[in-house]
Amino acid sequence: MSREMLVVDGLQYSNWSREIFEQMHEGGVDAVHATLVYHENARETLSRLGEWNRRFEAHDDLIMPVHEAADIERARQAGKVGIFLGAQNCSPIEDDIDMVALLRRLGLLIMQLTYNNQSLLACGCYEAEDSGITRFGRQVIKEMNRVGMVIDMSHSAERSTLDAIELSERPVIVSHANPHAWHPARRNKSDRVLEAIAESGGLLGFSAYPFHLRDGPDCTLAAYCDMIAATADLMGIEHIGIGTDLCQAQPTSVLEWMRNGRWSKEMDYGEGSQTNAGWPRPLSWFRDNRDFPNLIAGLRQRGFDEEEIGRIMGRNWVELLERAAPPSVS
Amino acid sequence: MSREMLVVDGLQYSNWSREIFEQMHEGGVDAVHATLVYHENARETLSRLGEWNRRFEAHDDLIMPVHEAADIERARQAGKVGIFLGAQNCSPIEDDIDMVALLRRLGLLIMQLTYNNQSLLACGCYEAEDSGITRFGRQVIKEMNRVGMVIDMSHSAERSTLDAIELSERPVIVSHANPHAWHPARRNKSDRVLEAIAESGGLLGFSAYPFHLRDGPDCTLAAYCDMIAATADLMGIEHIGIGTDLCQAQPTSVLEWMRNGRWSKEMDYGEGSQTNAGWPRPLSWFRDNRDFPNLIAGLRQRGFDEEEIGRIMGRNWVELLERAAPPSVS
Repeated sequence: MSREMLVVDGLQYSNWSREIFEQMHEGGVDAVHATLVYHENARETLSRLGEWNRRFEAHDDLIMPVHEAADIERARQAGKVGIFLGAQNCSPIEDDIDMVALLRRLGLLIMQLTYNNQSLLACGCYEAEDSGITRFGRQVIKEMNRVGMVIDMSHSAERSTLDAIELSERPVIVSHANPHAWHPARRNKSDRVLEAIAESGGLLGFSAYPFHLRDGPDCTLAAYCDMIAATADLMGIEHIGIGTDLCQAQPTSVLEWMRNGRWSKEMDYGEGSQTNAGWPRPLSWFRDNRDFPNLIAGLRQRGFDEEEIGRIMGRNWVELLERAAPPSVS
Repeated sequence: MSREMLVVDGLQYSNWSREIFEQMHEGGVDAVHATLVYHENARETLSRLGEWNRRFEAHDDLIMPVHEAADIERARQAGKVGIFLGAQNCSPIEDDIDMVALLRRLGLLIMQLTYNNQSLLACGCYEAEDSGITRFGRQVIKEMNRVGMVIDMSHSAERSTLDAIELSERPVIVSHANPHAWHPARRNKSDRVLEAIAESGGLLGFSAYPFHLRDGPDCTLAAYCDMIAATADLMGIEHIGIGTDLCQAQPTSVLEWMRNGRWSKEMDYGEGSQTNAGWPRPLSWFRDNRDFPNLIAGLRQRGFDEEEIGRIMGRNWVELLERAAPPSVS
């Protein structure tokens, strides 16, 4: 059933395995935005790309790379899950603007300008002060526009996000977060940001990571779908999608590395705390890739029609990539 | 006139500039194999690729990138010189086989397994002992075959070269050298190697670098064309082309870097000597890219017919790339 509806998940970072790719098939997933790197530099990013090439070879009956929006339909026709790669930080380009085109050519379709902290490009959502987009940031936004690499502000601060939307000639996205008005987590986005994202032609991917949810791991599917409905009213049905932030089978050490990278000598707990330092307890209705049909059922229950559900579950992501990540010019 | 004959130069490493690209046009050149790196590691190779992307942008009225053989004809139709990139050493892949597919995707069509010295893959032509292709080398040859990256043994030693030809399932080339029997320079190749290259479906590009020529800078055009005729008899007219080794406008410091990289604390003079340490005096009939018509005239004078000259001057290079560097699978 769900195989007939195009399903795209706009953010996952799992401990990738054949089992997980099989679960994607089981859950009716057609394409996934997979996080390639968090803190890796250019050379380390090449190694992560090399690892993905090995996965594409080893599991070519289950997955294939997506270099442009049309590849998602090609993957679907081939009965495979399309994987498109994104960086959660701008560390892969280091201080080198030439890396943007090269990484786009290698299949990096999406890049966040910051990951929680100040970067060379912009300010992250955990800094006390946000001075907006930097000199280098302005150049990189222009270059990302040129080569068709999507600007993702999921972990960025408010002013930097609004600046980026203003500066960018292409749509800007928040691949994985929720409205701050619904749940005031630091990673969630203000209505002002959400409206600007929509106005840019961009997209918000709804997170299913308990730290981003009202009532955390106890958030109900009905409450989640109510949030989606309210956001559809705010942003328009064309500008919302899914970005679960699913991190399957990852040890706590990976969570600590995501939060601390190489930048901190003191443990940073990110969205957690010293007494709540680990991975959150999963949602009962969304444990892993096999549970996308629950989400579809919840949206039906909430009264969305099939056309709307099709947009939310995947079609909007495909159209966003068509607008913001055209085939590389490089 | 020469614009009607497809002209491909199988090796240049110049101090690239608009002036040189204009000279390529003036000399009727359709495509050039440009050396991307000598001793650069993976990260440094990305920077060299970035510099080429900037050149392709800045001079897009004169040059364009070649990612597969068919791009040469596309360049010709567009009135531009096609540039295909090669590495003179395996340093760009470091010890990491995954780099082969990534660099092929970025446009590295050709890679030498060694540059004069022992490498992680094979033995160079300046070592005293040649133990053949290494364990890593065998894996890399297989991977280069898979992704369509051409194996170039120009600076490799005899046994390693014969081993590589034996191991490779695709044609192997010597992009720039001459027959050792004609001029016994250490970089020139034995008849045994040349026959094996031809048998593999490969190609020898004739060097115009004075160190590779009988009588050095005083080698006459007639003598050069006699050498070509003799080699055509040995290898077959389909397996020979041009690979001038032209290094325009390069200072002596670049020559010293080519010879010494980071590996030597004592000055290595390569094909020169302490008393002859600099760039050789250029040939009177081949000073720069404007002189390709002289070469065509010399071949006509020597009695080659237009079909044969067309093959030597460019057609064989295009067909070699079709056989050995098909569009990337990666």
